[in-house]
Amino acid sequence: MGYWAAQEQYSMQDLLKFVTEAEKSGFATTMTSDHFHPWWHDGAFGNFTWIWMAAAAENTKRMQFVTGVTAPVYRYHPAIIAQAFASLDVLYPGRIGLGLGSGEAMNEAPLGFDWPRARARLARTKEAIQIIKELWGQGVDDEGFVNFNGEYFLIRDAKLYTPPSTKIPVYMAATGKQAAKVAAQYSDGLITYLPAAEAGKVLHIFDATAEKEGRDKDSLEKIAEYKVSFSEDYDEAFKSATFWRATLIKNVFDSDISDPRSLQQKAESKVPDEKIKQAIQITTSIEDCIKSIEDYFKVGFTRVYVHSTSPDEIKFIQMFSKKVMPHFSIEARGSRKTTATSA
Amino acid sequence: MGYWAAQEQYSMQDLLKFVTEAEKSGFATTMTSDHFHPWWHDGAFGNFTWIWMAAAAENTKRMQFVTGVTAPVYRYHPAIIAQAFASLDVLYPGRIGLGLGSGEAMNEAPLGFDWPRARARLARTKEAIQIIKELWGQGVDDEGFVNFNGEYFLIRDAKLYTPPSTKIPVYMAATGKQAAKVAAQYSDGLITYLPAAEAGKVLHIFDATAEKEGRDKDSLEKIAEYKVSFSEDYDEAFKSATFWRATLIKNVFDSDISDPRSLQQKAESKVPDEKIKQAIQITTSIEDCIKSIEDYFKVGFTRVYVHSTSPDEIKFIQMFSKKVMPHFSIEARGSRKTTATSA
Repeated sequence: MGYWAAQEQYSMQDLLKFVTEAEKSGFATTMTSDHFHPWWHDGAFGNFTWIWMAAAAENTKRMQFVTGVTAPVYRYHPAIIAQAFASLDVLYPGRIGLGLGSGEAMNEAPLGFDWPRARARLARTKEAIQIIKELWGQGVDDEGFVNFNGEYFLIRDAKLYTPPSTKIPVYMAATGKQAAKVAAQYSDGLITYLPAAEAGKVLHIFDATAEKEGRDKDSLEKIAEYKVSFSEDYDEAFKSATFWRATLIKNVFDSDISDPRSLQQKAESKVPDEKIKQAIQITTSIEDCIKSIEDYFKVGFTRVYVHSTSPDEIKFIQMFSKKVMPHFSIEARGSRKTTATSA
Repeated sequence: MGYWAAQEQYSMQDLLKFVTEAEKSGFATTMTSDHFHPWWHDGAFGNFTWIWMAAAAENTKRMQFVTGVTAPVYRYHPAIIAQAFASLDVLYPGRIGLGLGSGEAMNEAPLGFDWPRARARLARTKEAIQIIKELWGQGVDDEGFVNFNGEYFLIRDAKLYTPPSTKIPVYMAATGKQAAKVAAQYSDGLITYLPAAEAGKVLHIFDATAEKEGRDKDSLEKIAEYKVSFSEDYDEAFKSATFWRATLIKNVFDSDISDPRSLQQKAESKVPDEKIKQAIQITTSIEDCIKSIEDYFKVGFTRVYVHSTSPDEIKFIQMFSKKVMPHFSIEARGSRKTTATSA
């Protein structure tokens, strides 16, 4: 079971408090977003995730930190991602994971980059993942210089002089068919953002592709982000969930809106409360939380990251530790395991 | 007085030990290099500096960390630099500085970027410094959205949702006239890499330009990197200094050589030992160290970073603390001061 640290919603200091509490409470791994602009304007943050990961690893003992997700398309060059995560893994061996995805306009367009169609972004991501893995893959016995002549990226005799100290897992986010296929071909696992039933469909494509590619699908991680807002006061729980309203704009991942003010405005006029209630579990019930997590494991997910947008996050973590965690086996609670487990 | 942490020569763990010892020994500030490829192949490192800075700030109490230098030209987008250093300053308020320069081919060309002439690189750096300062400059009362339509960079309604918590100083490296002028116009201080006499000439251009631009030159920092290899055994001291041989290849900053194997090879055949002895103080004498630092202060520098490439770095730091440090006034030892001090 994993914890989700939302760099867009909280200050870096608050997030450090949350993950420290999460580690104490039995979470073994944290997934954390990686943005330039946040999904919302009012009261939002734009923390630089890689810096926070180092601080968070210093402030915890065993917690693993994985990005959810880093876009290796424009603002971050894939070789820089490779270098940064290698260095994180050298300082915090075995505690670092890289989640990749093809990004959002709001994190790229403000920096002057064009925002092409989904296919081109996915193609860039595919090249990037190959480059990153090649740069990491250098053995101690070979010289480790990488050349890559892609459609989007060119790598010329590049070497990481500080290679990772362990094999860093690479996961890939997918909501659609094409991305799920690329994830099955090139990554160590799938990241999904949808409720269990829909996420299950993406997982099915991922598994089928992995099998067709001759990969051992049971060795791949299957990750679900479970979104929840919990409080004894339902209205309060709903209110704090509305921070994520803009993520529910229709086709938002293909949208070229990059100004959080516009995202907020559009979300406020186009995304009804009902849609939030479908995408995020707004609840006063511990049983609801247990049931939702069980659903993910039943569909075949191996790891569930709990993305809480609860009004009192520390209280949520403590409740979760006492009342939800014990319902799941050690395997389902743990991180980095490789076979599917149902609760 | 500052300490220099060379990411190309030492592991991140060793550098953490060095800066911890340096803080204990009275150094108030550390400057640290920011590379993709190192200057040498054998036994070199390619640490990702920003990650290390977070770890180093966690492992020290008051030490300031400044890059020497970050190139905002290709592999790092200026807005990403602005975001990253803002986040560092939020976690470690007042302890972060940004040193900028127009870079070297070895850190950019392996990632597929062209390596244009010095003028174009300087023009990019000039735009980048403006973008970074604008992104940081947002007040709490304004909306803080930045637009910048440059020759090289385009910024469209971009805002740092996690702005810096203090005014982060920006220093700029210069070896030549043009760069010194840009530094005097746009930065909070000059960084030089040369021995005192030559560095003094660059400083003169910097001061004259600042005056012409109507800036208060005494409010600007004047930084010198003092390179030294100290040991009771002269031959040992010389040997460990040879790691930096490639930095002395003629016009190396304009060279397009980007493979450390080639840099090493060229350095071994073209850079005689004599040249190393001119650029780096190879010494068995404490008095030599004191004299060299005095020379920098006399010429008008306000801060000297001691870049030691001594065979035993911990021993060097302890010797320096006991025998060199006491020769300088508190002002010259401290960081962030604004007026020139001679010893």
